[in-house]
Amino acid sequence: MLRFITSIPRYINKSQMFSYKRQLSTTRLVKNKFTWKLMCLGAISSGFYFIYISIQNGYTAERKKKVIVLGSGWAAVNFIRNLKPELYELSIVSPANYFLFTPLLPSVTVGTVEVRSVVEPIRNLIHKKHKNTVNFYEGECIDVDVENQTIRCKDNSAILGSKSEYTLDYDILIVGIGSDNATFNIPGVKQHCHFLKSVEDACKLRNTVMDCFETAAIPGQPQNEIERLLHFVVVGAGPTGVEFAAELRDLVRDDLKRLYPHLINYCKVTLVEALPQILNAYDENIKEYTTNHFKKDGINIWTKHMVTKVEKNCVTVKKMETNELIEVPFGTCVWSTGIAPQDLTKKIMKKIPGQTNRHALLTDYYLQVKNSNGHIYAMGDCCTIEQRKLLSDVKEIFTEADKDSDGKLSLEEFKAAMEHARYKYPQICKHFSGEDWDNSLQSAFNEADANADGCLGIKEFEKLLKTVDNKLTSLPCTAQVASQKGKYLGKLFSQHSDVIGEASDLSEQGVKQFEYNHMGMFAYIGDDKAVLQFPVIGSFKGLGAMYLWKAAYFNESVTTRTKCLILFDWIKSRLFGRDTSRI
Amino acid sequence: MLRFITSIPRYINKSQMFSYKRQLSTTRLVKNKFTWKLMCLGAISSGFYFIYISIQNGYTAERKKKVIVLGSGWAAVNFIRNLKPELYELSIVSPANYFLFTPLLPSVTVGTVEVRSVVEPIRNLIHKKHKNTVNFYEGECIDVDVENQTIRCKDNSAILGSKSEYTLDYDILIVGIGSDNATFNIPGVKQHCHFLKSVEDACKLRNTVMDCFETAAIPGQPQNEIERLLHFVVVGAGPTGVEFAAELRDLVRDDLKRLYPHLINYCKVTLVEALPQILNAYDENIKEYTTNHFKKDGINIWTKHMVTKVEKNCVTVKKMETNELIEVPFGTCVWSTGIAPQDLTKKIMKKIPGQTNRHALLTDYYLQVKNSNGHIYAMGDCCTIEQRKLLSDVKEIFTEADKDSDGKLSLEEFKAAMEHARYKYPQICKHFSGEDWDNSLQSAFNEADANADGCLGIKEFEKLLKTVDNKLTSLPCTAQVASQKGKYLGKLFSQHSDVIGEASDLSEQGVKQFEYNHMGMFAYIGDDKAVLQFPVIGSFKGLGAMYLWKAAYFNESVTTRTKCLILFDWIKSRLFGRDTSRI
Repeated sequence: MLRFITSIPRYINKSQMFSYKRQLSTTRLVKNKFTWKLMCLGAISSGFYFIYISIQNGYTAERKKKVIVLGSGWAAVNFIRNLKPELYELSIVSPANYFLFTPLLPSVTVGTVEVRSVVEPIRNLIHKKHKNTVNFYEGECIDVDVENQTIRCKDNSAILGSKSEYTLDYDILIVGIGSDNATFNIPGVKQHCHFLKSVEDACKLRNTVMDCFETAAIPGQPQNEIERLLHFVVVGAGPTGVEFAAELRDLVRDDLKRLYPHLINYCKVTLVEALPQILNAYDENIKEYTTNHFKKDGINIWTKHMVTKVEKNCVTVKKMETNELIEVPFGTCVWSTGIAPQDLTKKIMKKIPGQTNRHALLTDYYLQVKNSNGHIYAMGDCCTIEQRKLLSDVKEIFTEADKDSDGKLSLEEFKAAMEHARYKYPQICKHFSGEDWDNSLQSAFNEADANADGCLGIKEFEKLLKTVDNKLTSLPCTAQVASQKGKYLGKLFSQHSDVIGEASDLSEQGVKQFEYNHMGMFAYIGDDKAVLQFPVIGSFKGLGAMYLWKAAYFNESVTTRTKCLILFDWIKSRLFGRDTSRI
Repeated sequence: MLRFITSIPRYINKSQMFSYKRQLSTTRLVKNKFTWKLMCLGAISSGFYFIYISIQNGYTAERKKKVIVLGSGWAAVNFIRNLKPELYELSIVSPANYFLFTPLLPSVTVGTVEVRSVVEPIRNLIHKKHKNTVNFYEGECIDVDVENQTIRCKDNSAILGSKSEYTLDYDILIVGIGSDNATFNIPGVKQHCHFLKSVEDACKLRNTVMDCFETAAIPGQPQNEIERLLHFVVVGAGPTGVEFAAELRDLVRDDLKRLYPHLINYCKVTLVEALPQILNAYDENIKEYTTNHFKKDGINIWTKHMVTKVEKNCVTVKKMETNELIEVPFGTCVWSTGIAPQDLTKKIMKKIPGQTNRHALLTDYYLQVKNSNGHIYAMGDCCTIEQRKLLSDVKEIFTEADKDSDGKLSLEEFKAAMEHARYKYPQICKHFSGEDWDNSLQSAFNEADANADGCLGIKEFEKLLKTVDNKLTSLPCTAQVASQKGKYLGKLFSQHSDVIGEASDLSEQGVKQFEYNHMGMFAYIGDDKAVLQFPVIGSFKGLGAMYLWKAAYFNESVTTRTKCLILFDWIKSRLFGRDTSRI
């Protein structure tokens, strides 16, 4: 446009201008000099307007911030879905070109649900929301250059091109790479155990279960070997371990009993847990119900047992009450004891000062990675929100609040201080119920005022803050938290694109902090029964809970395609049984 | 039973016998000695009858012949389904614990149909037909001891017990182990090509296709590498190669075009075939139609091109007309040029005398392996029926037919000879149409009688037999032939259990020979079009043919479960597109 406008003088010399003028004068519209001048003015001003718009556009285009998302899990997908596509130049880098619906992985291990029903190609999701304005690159990020704002990625798949490593630069990096399996450095775990984190894990486990049965069925297999092969040990009795044990028990009862009748009495499932009870995070009545249900179903529960070593066909377990070591032969050992940071997470932690948490990237309440100057965000299992303790800042808070510097806080001073600090220390909001804010502040004040002098001394204030700090708990590493974080960041990036990636304090920009909204916990415990625990209405158990569990997962499934597939799988496995092919 | 009968004298001594008699005499029925004697006689004869039956049963139980089936493919499954379960002690040995519906493998490679929809656990099939009276053992048969009638098997799966090799003895062994891929010793084929025979092949190929696209999409991938990665070379333009090329083209057009719009113009499919045309076994009009359809669809067809070498990313092709060597870079190379015998087939061939065919086990028309004394049968791709040429036995046939030893055959002598030889040489039946048997013999006789003397000299007779021998063709190695052979053997074993496994000539027992009933050939050629060729009614092409193709495969699918799954997959991929996850 610029060239077009400026080209007029170059192509029109004086004589031409004359003929140009003459041409114009021949028109009906141009009847006098005034009109002619007016037209020239109009043309020139339009020209300038076009120049302005073009520059503006060019400027905006240049200024579109480059955002790179690492990962294609719960957090990443919810980020993409909540982002306004036109605001950024977005790229996604992940070794997997699909999103995996992790909560149904235990069902995949036995074929209640098929593996293709719990994955959705990430490009499908991108295409639906953003057409082709978002880039997806297959690869694993192997390093982040925090200073130069670049990442180094590597294609670690089987098919490689001449370029298999590449560098991308970013304005904002969002780390959502999830977590690894926690093995607590127990020898042999990585070599001999199955995990339940990825699609490969689930497929491999499904084939291993069937392989154990087929190998046990070989003619002349000694009885002790049959017993070993058909002993399934599950280490870790959290929801994943419990659900796998339950699904396995279902498979055995519903399908394998019919197909391997001579072997079925040898089959044994043992759940090993270091804590005193299974499903530790759940309510007492749920723990008890599940324990009884499992016992009735023939699943051995070994709580207060700790694995000390895993060998090829044998796991060594320490009975914690007596320190007795027991060797347990197994055919399949499944490890589901929790999570550990990925190598890349550890690498990034080392590069950024003040990352004092050993297990995850520390972020603030806006999910900005601490000390990353607003250039790195993190979501999902790889990060945790740094929760500032009021107690560690008690002196500053007190001094600032004590407006009249009398060494004491009046009720008014206390109220003002809490009002001021509530955004920096979200535990304040949790402690003093929001609706009855004033009253609950007053009653806390009165309660803390031990000497009843109508004021709080520093000691009294400190004691009060300690109670408030008790409300601090880290968020669990669940799909629910990850997806809420992703959704939050997607909205944040859409609504505040001007301040994103700038090293500014988001709390000063009136930006809403991340708040986790706990929707409840579910676990399938086998034989058409589930346990649910909701935050306010309490817990549910049994068949009805199983339908609620199914409904919730059906609803949470990311696309209509996966919804249909999961539903069909449930019907299919009910009608025809599970597929026991070892493929 | 025996014990019960013989116990009478022991427990009844003389005095007891007296009281016994007295008891009997008190009854109304026993009124005189004659009646009493009659009753004793009846009791004794009943006793003997029971003894006879018991021995008979015991004898039969002992004599239940041990049948081992090697393999779990088309032939094995059809054998099991047509066998009367109570007649034999049946064991099945196969490295795969499932039956694979091979005709849909090309669809599995691109996700039109899911892999679990084309497999059915062999134990499900056994359970349905025979409950648990049939044994299934996972393992690969590694050797056959023909003399001692034992087989040696090995578990070659990932999970091994302390016993991973085992020996089984048999009365009758049925070999149905299928075939390997023919590579014609061309270097690099095994290392760098994909095949389309097994479930693993299809899954690997599906992931490789997606991996090629993802690797091509890596930022900064050079253009020549993108072109290489997206070049799919298919060697062998039989039905499998053609169907894979067609399915791949569908995948690209229906799904990948939308998801990888910037790459789609680089994608190229090339079909390499040594013969002058694709789909060699089909009618001329089908070949032409498919060639035109492929050309319109952008698939390159290189007929009269022979692969001479395969390297990691490059296949060397010789243009047969000019002997020019062309190097063709590829991302994926699929090899579907035919079949070769399995190692075990070759091993068995070496152990049995007279196995002169290099590619397959020679059987007679009852599928008995030649020179196996009736102890080994074979079915499916691993065997071929030895077709006796009339010409090679011409002298014996002539001498035997020439009853009056005048050195000539009269019409009557000729007719009698053909009638006698028709079972040994099935080409006779093929040549002289069955309905008009007499007339067609007579006209052939007249035609052969060159000197019109009303008799056939040996030269004239020889010429006639040569024409008859021209009707000899080997059966193709298809699922259709395999399943018909399996079905035939199942029925044969059920109806003639008395002569099975005995070294007797089945032709003398009035046993029906195997006859192949050709039902037609199908191939899907992409874009909702198929080609069909039926033996009498001719060929069909286009959309209607595609529906016929789908209907036939739906119908041939082994269980209601797989029928439902295949149907659902077809609907699913039409509604939601194919799943492009690389898992």
